Amino acid sequence: MDLTTIVGALEDRQAIADVIHAYCDHFDRNEPEAVAALFTAHATVDYGPETATIVGAEAIAATIAVGLEQTFAATSHHVSNIRIAFESPDAARAVTYLYAWHRYLDGSPDGELWGRYRHRFVRSDAGWKIAELVLEAAGAVDFHRATMYPIGRR
Amino acid sequence: MDLTTIVGALEDRQAIADVIHAYCDHFDRNEPEAVAALFTAHATVDYGPETATIVGAEAIAATIAVGLEQTFAATSHHVSNIRIAFESPDAARAVTYLYAWHRYLDGSPDGELWGRYRHRFVRSDAGWKIAELVLEAAGAVDFHRATMYPIGRR
Amino acid sequence: MDLTTIVGALEDRQAIADVIHAYCDHFDRNEPEAVAALFTAHATVDYGPETATIVGAEAIAATIAVGLEQTFAATSHHVSNIRIAFESPDAARAVTYLYAWHRYLDGSPDGELWGRYRHRFVRSDAGWKIAELVLEAAGAVDFHRATMYPIGRR
Repeated sequence: MDLTTIVGALEDRQAIADVIHAYCDHFDRNEPEAVAALFTAHATVDYGPETATIVGAEAIAATIAVGLEQTFAATSHHVSNIRIAFESPDAARAVTYLYAWHRYLDGSPDGELWGRYRHRFVRSDAGWKIAELVLEAAGAVDFHRATMYPIGRR
Repeated sequence: MDLTTIVGALEDRQAIADVIHAYCDHFDRNEPEAVAALFTAHATVDYGPETATIVGAEAIAATIAVGLEQTFAATSHHVSNIRIAFESPDAARAVTYLYAWHRYLDGSPDGELWGRYRHRFVRSDAGWKIAELVLEAAGAVDFHRATMYPIGRR
Repeated sequence: MDLTTIVGALEDRQAIADVIHAYCDHFDRNEPEAVAALFTAHATVDYGPETATIVGAEAIAATIAVGLEQTFAATSHHVSNIRIAFESPDAARAVTYLYAWHRYLDGSPDGELWGRYRHRFVRSDAGWKIAELVLEAAGAVDFHRATMYPIGRR
């Protein structure tokens, strides 16, 4: 590969990580419209088997807004272990570890989740956008969902 | 932008992240002078409304040394979600997620903090230095401070 | 340094971080052979003073397999604060923070570890491999090991 291509891929990795970070930041600051703006118009979000897959940036904003207003007093989404694989110059898949802490409005004990985000990203005229998000759980304590997608441990 | 500028910015991002990592490592190893050496001579550190803003590398070393000797038996500062925005080629602001675990000398229950560092960095002849640090909290459990700056959740 | 060298080092940093991430992912998915494939043939793994140093990829797979099958119901290894220092173009040392969560098969309370990986990496024909791994602990709660190497806090 030539140097320009290599550097472009390094820049893309940094930009994609920043989209994941922006998702966390806007979620934790209760900014559902800003969360939704990180997704493509027809993106799908699948938080687990207990809820329907959310389709499209508008529905994402509306659905997240309900949880952020009615369920959580505070959240903190710490991501790490971000692994990005390019499918093409303009599309990538990523697996990201999530350690999320949640304080509930109803006074339930703080919930902790040790999970994974499986993302698909596509490049748009406005930069990288999330086209798919699936949430999986390695484990959880006092979390508000009883059933989650597993991480695929043998 | 030309390739040299783009690569320089990628290198700067890596160097700035390493300063944040060095802060955590020296803090957790009880090396207050090494922590202070990461700051500019006139840097400000604001850990929250309960304590006065610390000004200058010398005061930072002295102040941190007290906490490291008298409050903590052990700490572990895990940072992630680092987002860096350049103000100029030689100055940057960053928001970093912090998950910090603390064991206290007085036998109090371990304290956990889910926080944010807001940094300003400037380039010096000796590399990137911290010019400002503000600590915010999304939440905490059994933490030794009752009042913290909020993260700005709506 | 010329641009090609600088970009090569940035790529190497990304590749080395991905090896650390792959270790966590394969460990958490109970894939001991895939974990072992990340190491050199004569690599050493030292998880602490309670267990013998493991030598060689084959022994690593066999030893890890026992723990993954007999001790853990689930694990989640969240790494961050990765600091890489090159010893030569083809060898590097790294310090990585680890926040690890463990659920035990025997029903013991979940174990948490706030640790450090000290790695040595070497470049092979098949990319970067782990030549050495030492695990240290800043602290732990309900962890299945009583004695760990300390992080060197003064």
